[in-house]
Amino acid sequence: MFSGLSAFPLTPMNEAGVDEPAFVRLIERLASAGVDSIGALGSTGSYPYLARAERLRVAQLAVENAGNVPVMVGIGALRLRDVIDLAQDAQKAGASAVLLAPVSYQKLTAEEVFGLYEAVTRTLSVPLCIYDNPGTTHFEFSDELHGRIAQLPQVRAIKIPPVSADRDAARARVERLRALVPSRVAIGVSGDWAGADGLNAGCDNWYSVVGGLFPQAALHIVRAAQAGEAQEAVRRSERLQPLWALFRQYGGLRVIATAAELLGLADRPSLPLPIRSLDGAARVHLGSVLAELKLV
Amino acid sequence: MFSGLSAFPLTPMNEAGVDEPAFVRLIERLASAGVDSIGALGSTGSYPYLARAERLRVAQLAVENAGNVPVMVGIGALRLRDVIDLAQDAQKAGASAVLLAPVSYQKLTAEEVFGLYEAVTRTLSVPLCIYDNPGTTHFEFSDELHGRIAQLPQVRAIKIPPVSADRDAARARVERLRALVPSRVAIGVSGDWAGADGLNAGCDNWYSVVGGLFPQAALHIVRAAQAGEAQEAVRRSERLQPLWALFRQYGGLRVIATAAELLGLADRPSLPLPIRSLDGAARVHLGSVLAELKLV
Repeated sequence: MFSGLSAFPLTPMNEAGVDEPAFVRLIERLASAGVDSIGALGSTGSYPYLARAERLRVAQLAVENAGNVPVMVGIGALRLRDVIDLAQDAQKAGASAVLLAPVSYQKLTAEEVFGLYEAVTRTLSVPLCIYDNPGTTHFEFSDELHGRIAQLPQVRAIKIPPVSADRDAARARVERLRALVPSRVAIGVSGDWAGADGLNAGCDNWYSVVGGLFPQAALHIVRAAQAGEAQEAVRRSERLQPLWALFRQYGGLRVIATAAELLGLADRPSLPLPIRSLDGAARVHLGSVLAELKLV
Repeated sequence: MFSGLSAFPLTPMNEAGVDEPAFVRLIERLASAGVDSIGALGSTGSYPYLARAERLRVAQLAVENAGNVPVMVGIGALRLRDVIDLAQDAQKAGASAVLLAPVSYQKLTAEEVFGLYEAVTRTLSVPLCIYDNPGTTHFEFSDELHGRIAQLPQVRAIKIPPVSADRDAARARVERLRALVPSRVAIGVSGDWAGADGLNAGCDNWYSVVGGLFPQAALHIVRAAQAGEAQEAVRRSERLQPLWALFRQYGGLRVIATAAELLGLADRPSLPLPIRSLDGAARVHLGSVLAELKLV
């Protein structure tokens, strides 16, 4: 479950609801590409924008259409009571694991975040992945807190923010965390431009936005890193540099949703308002980047 | 509506739901103190943590128990579709105005935020207050964007973050914004420690957390500033310095919820988990601060 490529697909939607046929097509695309796991209802899957019933339905569709690929389901919400309900729903839908970010409106304290994971893990029968994403949660985990939470039952993985592009710094960061968590806990990297660097630095897996739409391009990077071909993994990632530049400028979600629209894999709009996919010159530029990279 | 003291009460709650009798007592306390308006379901009222039906019920209770005091109701949510539903509910409940923050999970662009206000104001029949709170929304309004949004129909107020403690800087900040918005749009200050400074700098009103639990203490500051007694307003605010220090350290919500618990105006717990009120030494310290300030 927590090794190799964890592909995070978009949940295509509009103001009327989730576009279920489009979502199923994306899941089938990932299953037939042979990704190692699927992360449904991650940030790229716009989990916080959906109602509980919609999230249950999306989790069910992901599991039903993923073939043998294990599916992890995002269960984050502002309130503990909602997280517990969503965890039950995800398990009922057949999720192989759940992903939990400490979503906040009021800035949370470390003790509150520990209390959240403590209460939720007590209710779980499937593995949990700690979702460390300060860009959306505005909570900064200390390594010490990661170490405490990683001792809780059912915790099996940590999804960390991008590692440094400096090889020694990246390796030191992963090793520092590794020393603080039980050996059963996998460490995976996110931030697509840091996928190759994270895997080369010793991460077990890559939680990938690009992998949710372009699984082959992401698998080339992952398989190279897994084979010990660090340079080749970096070369494959650097080839996608024009895409990473757009991710950094507009956010991965807007870029990947626009790409799905351009590929005809999702209708436009595919994002929950007020969020919009790219428009005008940015949209045209993305189209030519995809063409140059032979991703269309 | 948008002048003087706008008092923001807690919505006392626990994992089972909203403590409606406690909320009604808080509203009655504000109405009998003679605050100028009540901001129900603001950040202090934990609006994003409640379900739609709970928010409708809280809005109704606020309006029904506020006597002649006008009630503004928070309608923020991640999705435009939910904001529009909440706006309808608030109007149905009899709100005199609505308060809208650009709540985010994915960081929003200026165009997306403008689009949000444009779509919502089109559906409104009551005034709207723009809620500029980068600490919780992680969106930074430019003055230019405020100016554009302020032109939209129904926009009648802006709730700005704390002004500088430097008198000239505070006045310059309010005047810069004032020049960009129509004269029908009131400018109010938040951040309780900046209440007196904001009013003295020319703000029309103070959106106050402390005023939601200790209306008399807040009214003393407001009435002094309104009478042109700038020094007296500052003196009254500085007297509450030990409370402002706690607000800065623990967040206004945790401090005021703990104070309500200590006063017996709310049961413990009164906040939505994972958020907790103060514990241990911090709780004891708050108790002695309240006693010293003769607020108990």
